[in-house]
Amino acid sequence: MQQQKTICIQGLGFVGLAMATVVANVIDKSGKPRFKVYGVDLPSKQASIDLINKGLLPFKTEDKSFAPELLKAVCEYKNLVATSDENIYQQADIVVVDVHLTISKPDENDYSKYHLYKESFEKAIHSLGKKIKADCLVLVETTVPPGFTRNVVCPILKEEFTKRNILSEPLIAHSYERVMPGKEYLNSIRNYYRTFAGLNEESAALAKQFLETIIHTQAYPLKQEEIPEASELAKVMENSYRAMNIAFIYEWTLMAEKMGVNLFSVIEGIRNRNTHKNIMMPGLGVGGYCLTKDSLLALWSNDNYYHSTFGFPLSTAALKINDAMPLHVVDLIEEYESLENKKVLILGVSYREDVGDTRFSPTEVLYKALQQKKAMVYVHDTYVTNWEELPDASFVDDFTGFDILVFATRHQQYVSFSTEDLLRISENTVLVVDANNILSDEKIQLLQKHQRRVIGIGKGHINKNIKKKE
Amino acid sequence: MQQQKTICIQGLGFVGLAMATVVANVIDKSGKPRFKVYGVDLPSKQASIDLINKGLLPFKTEDKSFAPELLKAVCEYKNLVATSDENIYQQADIVVVDVHLTISKPDENDYSKYHLYKESFEKAIHSLGKKIKADCLVLVETTVPPGFTRNVVCPILKEEFTKRNILSEPLIAHSYERVMPGKEYLNSIRNYYRTFAGLNEESAALAKQFLETIIHTQAYPLKQEEIPEASELAKVMENSYRAMNIAFIYEWTLMAEKMGVNLFSVIEGIRNRNTHKNIMMPGLGVGGYCLTKDSLLALWSNDNYYHSTFGFPLSTAALKINDAMPLHVVDLIEEYESLENKKVLILGVSYREDVGDTRFSPTEVLYKALQQKKAMVYVHDTYVTNWEELPDASFVDDFTGFDILVFATRHQQYVSFSTEDLLRISENTVLVVDANNILSDEKIQLLQKHQRRVIGIGKGHINKNIKKKE
Repeated sequence: MQQQKTICIQGLGFVGLAMATVVANVIDKSGKPRFKVYGVDLPSKQASIDLINKGLLPFKTEDKSFAPELLKAVCEYKNLVATSDENIYQQADIVVVDVHLTISKPDENDYSKYHLYKESFEKAIHSLGKKIKADCLVLVETTVPPGFTRNVVCPILKEEFTKRNILSEPLIAHSYERVMPGKEYLNSIRNYYRTFAGLNEESAALAKQFLETIIHTQAYPLKQEEIPEASELAKVMENSYRAMNIAFIYEWTLMAEKMGVNLFSVIEGIRNRNTHKNIMMPGLGVGGYCLTKDSLLALWSNDNYYHSTFGFPLSTAALKINDAMPLHVVDLIEEYESLENKKVLILGVSYREDVGDTRFSPTEVLYKALQQKKAMVYVHDTYVTNWEELPDASFVDDFTGFDILVFATRHQQYVSFSTEDLLRISENTVLVVDANNILSDEKIQLLQKHQRRVIGIGKGHINKNIKKKE
Repeated sequence: MQQQKTICIQGLGFVGLAMATVVANVIDKSGKPRFKVYGVDLPSKQASIDLINKGLLPFKTEDKSFAPELLKAVCEYKNLVATSDENIYQQADIVVVDVHLTISKPDENDYSKYHLYKESFEKAIHSLGKKIKADCLVLVETTVPPGFTRNVVCPILKEEFTKRNILSEPLIAHSYERVMPGKEYLNSIRNYYRTFAGLNEESAALAKQFLETIIHTQAYPLKQEEIPEASELAKVMENSYRAMNIAFIYEWTLMAEKMGVNLFSVIEGIRNRNTHKNIMMPGLGVGGYCLTKDSLLALWSNDNYYHSTFGFPLSTAALKINDAMPLHVVDLIEEYESLENKKVLILGVSYREDVGDTRFSPTEVLYKALQQKKAMVYVHDTYVTNWEELPDASFVDDFTGFDILVFATRHQQYVSFSTEDLLRISENTVLVVDANNILSDEKIQLLQKHQRRVIGIGKGHINKNIKKKE
């Protein structure tokens, strides 16, 4: 039997706890867990830590396998323990760093004003350097500015090693996760591609060996890069590409609406080309932790380490455009109806369909803009009843009695509304707004037959049937 | 037997002659040609017209089926005739408009300075209106500013019809071609997806019927849009999307080179994601007639018809970036070698691999920039011996004796150079530049072992091995 290695997961957020659960559920051929896992978080997270140690998830998820797997690891295998005691790092063979690194959104017109809050990340690395064994692998999964592993993580560990008279080089690697909260939460770790790189050959070999035990690498082969910078770059580039492709649609949406063109149909035609399969559809905007900020990490990196004079004009323009996108819904509504004193219900506060995740949700921007227009705004979400970012928002369960309905998130609940449902809840409306392609053309045509005024983002062919306000 | 319809193709350029050849080779069940085809061009194109009427192609192509199909139509079926006599339009059941519409590139910093040269297109439509039968379908294939079919083509035809006392509405449709010169030239018409729309139901039905006879619609179903604006928009949006995705790579290339990162490997990893399969690789830049200008047609359209105040910031930024891309090769070279008085050979003047097409080739920008740096510039291209845009360029067949070799186009000839070939032609070089991922890492490493100084666009891992100039 192989010796059971000890893995510490530093940071028990959306990524860290999923990672800890997956690692704790790796079993060897005899069916025994392969690793002893410690999840480490700050003392301020004691409430979460206590829940986890009872085998309970500290947040909701739509992945039905997550809760039972956590419970199994904590209560049956007893190989997953959460703690805030940093002494545990002394026992680690590998520490996986899943600590958040926050960068602030800059002023809309001045992208030099972003700020990277690197202190807590640096402190976390110092705490490792003070405790870990000389031959412990530090595997950074945090999305960092490219160059951070070499220029921040390595010097901090060396500094702490020197204080402890450890002469050997610290073992450090970077591998970026592509964790996607939702129904495939744990699966997005086990069954997905991974890129990684070590600062030296030994680190790379150890990282490879570890990743091979937790990822199904036969189906999803690992991609090894020469240097950690490549792995760090890949993550922010990947997300910047997606964000730009979303932003691209915005400029075409605005013209298509004025043209009376059905942009969804146009894009369906364009997607026939293999080179264009991933062109995005019009929508409300972008949310979440990654697409809304990862380009800024590249910008920081360039400003601080690499100094390409060209910078990132497309990637940063895309961030700006995406931030403004929800405001277009307000502009479009105002072409048809005044918002003042209107009772408006937004259906969907989560930024992603069939997930209860409100981080940087475009609905937040929409909500605030509608309030500024003096509308009385109410919200509903299939998965959210407590909106962390806007705790004063009024949630409702009854969708009737509103002047304006705005369909914002593509939750299955809204998509599967029958025409009867829609006719009932829109009975006293002056306007129904499909901001995210939630209503089919057939449903909209039926609503219009019953004198409902329906408009939609990217739906020029629908909007042109509705009389604008004088 | 069905009656043989008469089809006129207006404009015998890259698209029109291919279209004429394909239409003329449509046969019915009895093996007889289905259409009588007239290709119509201006009297100034008499030389081309004469060649075509002998069954000969007026330009080179890598599609081996093109010449025999043209010959067959002209000399065997005798159903394809080229002419400059506009009276032929009187006989047409359908006119396919493949007339060029040119928009000039604006001043680099002022995108309001583009100019649409619409006069020759308008004149072409007038010439149709003067001659065609009232029930002739005018099928516009030209890439036009969205809205052009309704706002330009239709009024012109109506004006001419009124003069002729024709009271019925002209029959007009738009369908954009995706013709790709190269080995699959004719195939790119027959075996590819098509979007189309008519100005009214009758036009749409006629266009559908015609397109179904020339395109293999069982494998490539037609996509019908409600209004021609949608078909027009799709074309320029599709090309703008591609152009932006190419531009995106530029900003990441510049940083990756400074980081010592192998960007090709990074992108290979990113392409594992289904949503990211089409992310582009670093290269020399963009050429050709479409990707370098189609966004401007959308801009014109918005400025003149639709007035979305947002405009096209991403799409126009992409055009600017792509125009500048070849200049980066010069900057990169100058980090390693001075260009003054150096003998430089550029391998590849065509903008696309394995095609002899120099329209808006990025090599042209590169060539001029190298000359400005006082280099002595020579060129070679597998498929080009006469560079229309730069007739003074010196072509060579012997690749030895140069100070700097720049691999610019991914022609198979260059990609398949053996290490021995490469060692021989680089014997006296001070620098070999791979501007378009033409040399494999293995070949470059062998060259470097033999003291050749090799650098590459997007190849930070290669470039960092080469000492920069003081």
